[in-house]
Amino acid sequence: MTHTTLQVRTERGVCTLTLNRPEVRNAMSLAMVNELLQALQAAEQDPAVRAIVLRGAGGHFCAGGDISDMAQARMKLAQQQADAQPADPNPVAVTNAAFGHLCLAYARSPLPIVTVLEGTVMGGGFGLACVSDVSLALDTVSFRLPETSLGLIPAQIAPFLVERLGYAEAKRLAVTGAKVGAAEALTIRLVHEVHGDAAALDAALQRTLASVLACGPQAIAATKNLLSHARLTPPEQLINDAAALFARAVLSEEGQEGTGAFMQKRKPQWVPQEG
Amino acid sequence: MTHTTLQVRTERGVCTLTLNRPEVRNAMSLAMVNELLQALQAAEQDPAVRAIVLRGAGGHFCAGGDISDMAQARMKLAQQQADAQPADPNPVAVTNAAFGHLCLAYARSPLPIVTVLEGTVMGGGFGLACVSDVSLALDTVSFRLPETSLGLIPAQIAPFLVERLGYAEAKRLAVTGAKVGAAEALTIRLVHEVHGDAAALDAALQRTLASVLACGPQAIAATKNLLSHARLTPPEQLINDAAALFARAVLSEEGQEGTGAFMQKRKPQWVPQEG
Amino acid sequence: MTHTTLQVRTERGVCTLTLNRPEVRNAMSLAMVNELLQALQAAEQDPAVRAIVLRGAGGHFCAGGDISDMAQARMKLAQQQADAQPADPNPVAVTNAAFGHLCLAYARSPLPIVTVLEGTVMGGGFGLACVSDVSLALDTVSFRLPETSLGLIPAQIAPFLVERLGYAEAKRLAVTGAKVGAAEALTIRLVHEVHGDAAALDAALQRTLASVLACGPQAIAATKNLLSHARLTPPEQLINDAAALFARAVLSEEGQEGTGAFMQKRKPQWVPQEG
Repeated sequence: MTHTTLQVRTERGVCTLTLNRPEVRNAMSLAMVNELLQALQAAEQDPAVRAIVLRGAGGHFCAGGDISDMAQARMKLAQQQADAQPADPNPVAVTNAAFGHLCLAYARSPLPIVTVLEGTVMGGGFGLACVSDVSLALDTVSFRLPETSLGLIPAQIAPFLVERLGYAEAKRLAVTGAKVGAAEALTIRLVHEVHGDAAALDAALQRTLASVLACGPQAIAATKNLLSHARLTPPEQLINDAAALFARAVLSEEGQEGTGAFMQKRKPQWVPQEG
Repeated sequence: MTHTTLQVRTERGVCTLTLNRPEVRNAMSLAMVNELLQALQAAEQDPAVRAIVLRGAGGHFCAGGDISDMAQARMKLAQQQADAQPADPNPVAVTNAAFGHLCLAYARSPLPIVTVLEGTVMGGGFGLACVSDVSLALDTVSFRLPETSLGLIPAQIAPFLVERLGYAEAKRLAVTGAKVGAAEALTIRLVHEVHGDAAALDAALQRTLASVLACGPQAIAATKNLLSHARLTPPEQLINDAAALFARAVLSEEGQEGTGAFMQKRKPQWVPQEG
Repeated sequence: MTHTTLQVRTERGVCTLTLNRPEVRNAMSLAMVNELLQALQAAEQDPAVRAIVLRGAGGHFCAGGDISDMAQARMKLAQQQADAQPADPNPVAVTNAAFGHLCLAYARSPLPIVTVLEGTVMGGGFGLACVSDVSLALDTVSFRLPETSLGLIPAQIAPFLVERLGYAEAKRLAVTGAKVGAAEALTIRLVHEVHGDAAALDAALQRTLASVLACGPQAIAATKNLLSHARLTPPEQLINDAAALFARAVLSEEGQEGTGAFMQKRKPQWVPQEG
């Protein structure tokens, strides 16, 4: 598949998606939204892919939504209104919802997702950081939710701000415009590690990926799914489902390989060979 | 409107509510509860008000509920029982619920709310800190939930402890009596900034207000509302509503002013002039 | 009652449960699960018990589930299948669900629960740490969720990881295998205090217990229960219930003793005498 807004590279089980519009700090166009969704679906269907890394080209992660797409959606709406056509579905809402579906697909992916955050992380880029499982950052990273300062709202991002940061912290950011540097990002768990240069950041990424690849892929997928249910379900309602999931894992090929390898003091087959 | 327990002052878009019973460390009487609710409603209906600051007179924020109100409610209940009147509604519960409605009104206000926390912050005052969006504190601040040490419960505060601190931290505080100093308050995000003297605290307040006033008021209101739904609603159920909210914001007068000002490299009209 | 896997000692209102299989780093057998549940129920029914301390013998807290129980459950399942008996209920799921019921019982206990965490804290032991109200640790403590690295899932623990750490942090741990040291455990609030040696840890435990014992036992129980509802219930639905709970506490013997003692500037009767 050809991509115009992404670089996609799969190597040793890791699919790296690089947002690749450096001339606009990787602003997220509708084309990029579609390509990010397709690339995720392709990775999820490729049994060789065990983890996704999401990063940006040219020293920035992502400057948020591309203004030209929104301008186009507004022009389309104006045309519909001029033609006395029904304005439903509203093209602005349709464009915005497409980004929401993208966030949801990443947030609920069975694959582990690691974001590498540098430079500008704004708006939709802030949202992508929030839907990833692990975020590693350079200490010069700069986060912002510019929407409210434009009279707009971080609409599709809102649920994932709450999932990642908790309700109160998300509310504080919404009210203050959310300028967040590396140290505060670490405090509020928007990022999990901060590093001082690209080499240290890359070493951290390799360590994180080694941890991820040491875990069974089906086990990770089942655990992520169970945790997403646990967010809004009382624990007492999960005991039986969790027990059934556990039993299925024990009896699965992956579970038998994992426990067998442990008994035999060797690494399971899913762990990549070193070197 | 005349207030007996509050100072109310609106200046440059900011309505400052100062709890004003310094002789009892601003203990919250039923009169104060009513005046706080009325002052909030008045501020929400005044288009000139863009933010609320809540603080205490005399070096303390608030020492919690006023014991004399509770004593009065108990006497009223005893009288009802002596008169063989039905004890339902129970005056103690009615008094307590009034405070709950106050907390909810502040927690769900469309206006940004900043608390300035000094000295004693106990019981109901702890609750007010939790329902605000941003909390700034002096490093001598001292938090406590004294209820359980009196054989009582932090009843109306409980939901807002969970919203602000998360369930596990709220539970830890309930079990240990919740004596929290400035450093721990910062760690658990009960406060967002700690400062060493009144001048630094005031400068922080001015910075926070400048950030808040740079954001569109309707955008803030819509975002706060959406986040409160996102706390207990699965993200997949919010995509369409969020898209409709986004489209409405784009097409609103505020959204058009905000995006237009951005294109023209000027500040939107809602940003106060400096100086 | 005789215990084979636990030491149980009640002294001055505190019931200390010591996991006592040091030869296997206190790995949690089915027998231990049953004894932990019985010991909790006995403590909850004993009016002399005001708090529970959970710790491990021999320098470790708990190395997780005992592999031999799982092997036995698998053999039982294989036997059922060989005998052409129905594999439902699946013995592996039954064993796992028993641990889930244990976690839930501790998570929802009306008694305050303090964990003292040393050495290895893995799998089910990690879960027990998460269901306690307060966790104190030695700085050499080492946490891990080994399940996914074995192709298994931290199934019954998942809801309590979310309750303690929040959804995003739980997800990060699931994806990376969750090796957590003392400093990170403090950051993510998996532990609340870290100490450098056993004497400092014990002093911290005594301070924590003194705080807990200064609070009214019924007040703590009612507050814990209310907070657990507040986790997944909108605040507006809790106002009336909370007011009724408050009124009941005010009029209870405990509430009258607590507020009366405050007026008389003495300690309530539930506070242990010093020395």
